[in-house]
Amino acid sequence: MAKEKEITARADDYAQWYNDLVRKAGLADYSAVKGCMVIKPYGFAIWENMRDQLDRMFKDTGHSNAYFPLLIPKSFFSKEASHVEGFAKECAVVTHYRLKNAEDGSGVVVDPDAKLEEELIIRPTSETIIWNTYRDWIQSHRDLPLLINQWANVVRWEMRTRLFLRTTEFLWQEGHTAHATREEAVAETLTMLDVYSTFAEEWMALPVIRGVKTANERFAGAEDTYTIEALMQDGKALQSGTSHFLGQNFAKAFDVKFATKDNSQEYVWATSWGVSTRLMGALVMAHSDDDGLIIPPRLAPIQVVIVPIPKPLPELTEVANTIAAGLKSRGIRVKIDNDDQSRPGFKFAEYEKLGMPVRIGLGARDLANGTVEVARRDTKEKSSIPLEGLAAHIEQLLVDIQANIFDRALKYRDEHITPANSWAEFIEILDGKGGFVSAHWDGTTETELAIKDETKATIRCIPLDNPQEAGVCIRSGKPSTQRVLFARAY
Amino acid sequence: MAKEKEITARADDYAQWYNDLVRKAGLADYSAVKGCMVIKPYGFAIWENMRDQLDRMFKDTGHSNAYFPLLIPKSFFSKEASHVEGFAKECAVVTHYRLKNAEDGSGVVVDPDAKLEEELIIRPTSETIIWNTYRDWIQSHRDLPLLINQWANVVRWEMRTRLFLRTTEFLWQEGHTAHATREEAVAETLTMLDVYSTFAEEWMALPVIRGVKTANERFAGAEDTYTIEALMQDGKALQSGTSHFLGQNFAKAFDVKFATKDNSQEYVWATSWGVSTRLMGALVMAHSDDDGLIIPPRLAPIQVVIVPIPKPLPELTEVANTIAAGLKSRGIRVKIDNDDQSRPGFKFAEYEKLGMPVRIGLGARDLANGTVEVARRDTKEKSSIPLEGLAAHIEQLLVDIQANIFDRALKYRDEHITPANSWAEFIEILDGKGGFVSAHWDGTTETELAIKDETKATIRCIPLDNPQEAGVCIRSGKPSTQRVLFARAY
Repeated sequence: MAKEKEITARADDYAQWYNDLVRKAGLADYSAVKGCMVIKPYGFAIWENMRDQLDRMFKDTGHSNAYFPLLIPKSFFSKEASHVEGFAKECAVVTHYRLKNAEDGSGVVVDPDAKLEEELIIRPTSETIIWNTYRDWIQSHRDLPLLINQWANVVRWEMRTRLFLRTTEFLWQEGHTAHATREEAVAETLTMLDVYSTFAEEWMALPVIRGVKTANERFAGAEDTYTIEALMQDGKALQSGTSHFLGQNFAKAFDVKFATKDNSQEYVWATSWGVSTRLMGALVMAHSDDDGLIIPPRLAPIQVVIVPIPKPLPELTEVANTIAAGLKSRGIRVKIDNDDQSRPGFKFAEYEKLGMPVRIGLGARDLANGTVEVARRDTKEKSSIPLEGLAAHIEQLLVDIQANIFDRALKYRDEHITPANSWAEFIEILDGKGGFVSAHWDGTTETELAIKDETKATIRCIPLDNPQEAGVCIRSGKPSTQRVLFARAY
Repeated sequence: MAKEKEITARADDYAQWYNDLVRKAGLADYSAVKGCMVIKPYGFAIWENMRDQLDRMFKDTGHSNAYFPLLIPKSFFSKEASHVEGFAKECAVVTHYRLKNAEDGSGVVVDPDAKLEEELIIRPTSETIIWNTYRDWIQSHRDLPLLINQWANVVRWEMRTRLFLRTTEFLWQEGHTAHATREEAVAETLTMLDVYSTFAEEWMALPVIRGVKTANERFAGAEDTYTIEALMQDGKALQSGTSHFLGQNFAKAFDVKFATKDNSQEYVWATSWGVSTRLMGALVMAHSDDDGLIIPPRLAPIQVVIVPIPKPLPELTEVANTIAAGLKSRGIRVKIDNDDQSRPGFKFAEYEKLGMPVRIGLGARDLANGTVEVARRDTKEKSSIPLEGLAAHIEQLLVDIQANIFDRALKYRDEHITPANSWAEFIEILDGKGGFVSAHWDGTTETELAIKDETKATIRCIPLDNPQEAGVCIRSGKPSTQRVLFARAY
């Protein structure tokens, strides 16, 4: 059980627990390049499952994938006024296109003769290059809607980084759609918010609150930013996906017009929406415990691991193969542990660390009784289950585990949405139980920023269908028409 | 049929035909960034099918995906002597990490205070950053073999570019494996060559010659480079995938050792292997004709298009839906044309341009007879086929088309492997029928380069299991033990 000790307990140091888990469960690690991570095979396998499901959902809602250049001319960022403030600052700048041997033989140096006329920026997000392209693609209402998604790497220079949650380079998808009307673009923005919340809840077992951001928290260049907000086990919120209604801002910046049915020229309406490898961080932090990861069955690369006890003796391996075949025929992802070097206790700890949802222990004595030991990762319960009907049992168990993980996270989340009716209450909740604080706010950016300065809490969102309720702002005392959700956030 | 005229005929200008086809069939286009392309939705859908199949084949041979940083410290390239010569020169160099507002308000400029201590190179290939990482991942023989693949974008600064075939940024996969013995690494190199040739032949319908590169044509840092070489319709060869045996070169450069079973320390053996979006160019150039693309059924995003004639009247749409359901239940990708604006002739030309393997024409008169018109893209044959049993007929037809496209390309390829026994013959073939020229070569880089200088022909490969045969080099007249394959190439 030595390996388990590698992971710091949550109660001792939550941030260190997270970091230990990500590194020691083989999800990701830091690289030789400051702020950039390596996504390790096990972590990437989980990301692939997330990506593939999101991709299916995008295609089911009519989107196609495409690919746009990594490099964006610097001048493009200046074309949309608020976008440049949001994105063009902390970015990787390509200035040269050649190296040469150093004259002193010490290696290679940048060739000063190979300076670019205009610097290129590694995309921090692709609105500009994509809308510059859409100008050629869109002429008529018949070219609309244009529903495109891109899976890509992006770079935003970050000074303080954290594996998955905030890295200089990360992987994401960015949808960029073009529409003939405002109504259609707004509907698309909300459709994609729905896709994200459905994915988060049904696949990641992660309950999310759907809402709209305040003006201050909007995407640079958006008219409205919608968000899904999740709660981590330390009571901090994590923005898990955003969907932006961009109005005609980028169409105007890049002169993208279309001929309407009555042949007038109008600017195109736009949306963009994205989720990233940050979701991996959310997945880890929402469900896992001090023993390791807890991966929801629908995303687990290996859903069931079969461990012969005490080791893979031929008669045990034969039974393991039969069980595995039965599980595979139901579409269950299964691994048989054939390692004959380690003891079962060590293996159990390893599989707990890796968060595999179900472990089947195959011992000679159990088998003689026609049973196996089935352990579930989420509750750590062990049961003796008859071999007869085992595959059907496991199939249902995976469904139950998926539901239990979600319910547990939902219960925690719901217990951590706390109303505050005074400034003192607000502070007490933030510094105490944490989580979301539901409080009245006067609707001004000034007050929002003052609260953030004093408490580090931000308005995570104004929930969709938020009940309207007269009240007074917890900080300014001015009148308010609704409560909004505050939290400290990642 | 107006749209068809957009495409230059092959006989008039092969290069222009290719360019027209790629752009006008919606595969890719140039972007605002010199040398970088946009992969359009239809082109990307084909690439996705290629990528997904390759990915399955990599996983079936025991590989896992991972992800390594886009940016590589400049000094890493100097660590492997021949690698730096091959790759560190024409590359995109990141020198700064911040922009700021220009003082004259003209936009944004590079912030001189944000200069990196060490420049970062956008990966042209990832051996260096990966082997730097493997040093942490590999300690013992129990960590080997390490079988990892990465799907990624890479940048190699190119002065003369061509859509898919040679672009500054391109998409690819790069496998990087680590092994305990030379034998195992060599076997891996050949296994992946097999995966590539199987993929090219069975999925792309592209016959390839498997062989080994000469020392001069080797990957920078490899001990041996294996290749699959295909022939395009203009008689030029196209290197379609390479698999490298890297020996211990990168292990030594990055100090990656492992403890053997008897606890001595040894350097790790390595391979790397890759194919890229260049395969899209091969696919287009190998099969297509003056009317448009010809996509092999196994890779076609839409395998069957159903066109109601003269337009989607309700009774025709109903039949179309029934046919489509029957095809989908067999796993066939099908589209119903519901456009009521264009005439059938225009649509037929469009679908020919897009290379959809099978078109079903639904006319009222045919339907009254219980038949539909089935047109195959590869031969342009049309047949009247009974509705009864149509799905089974189409399923078989797709298999036949896949085989026919391959056979046609194979016949062309085999007719274009021509022995030359003298310099005059060599030149005559190169300037005449083109294709591969099988000729004796004295085995020296000097002669190889002289031939390249004079004729632009390169040694594409020494085929695997090449028959040994005494002869004299066509250029130097020196003794030779075998023929090798020359060609002008992309």
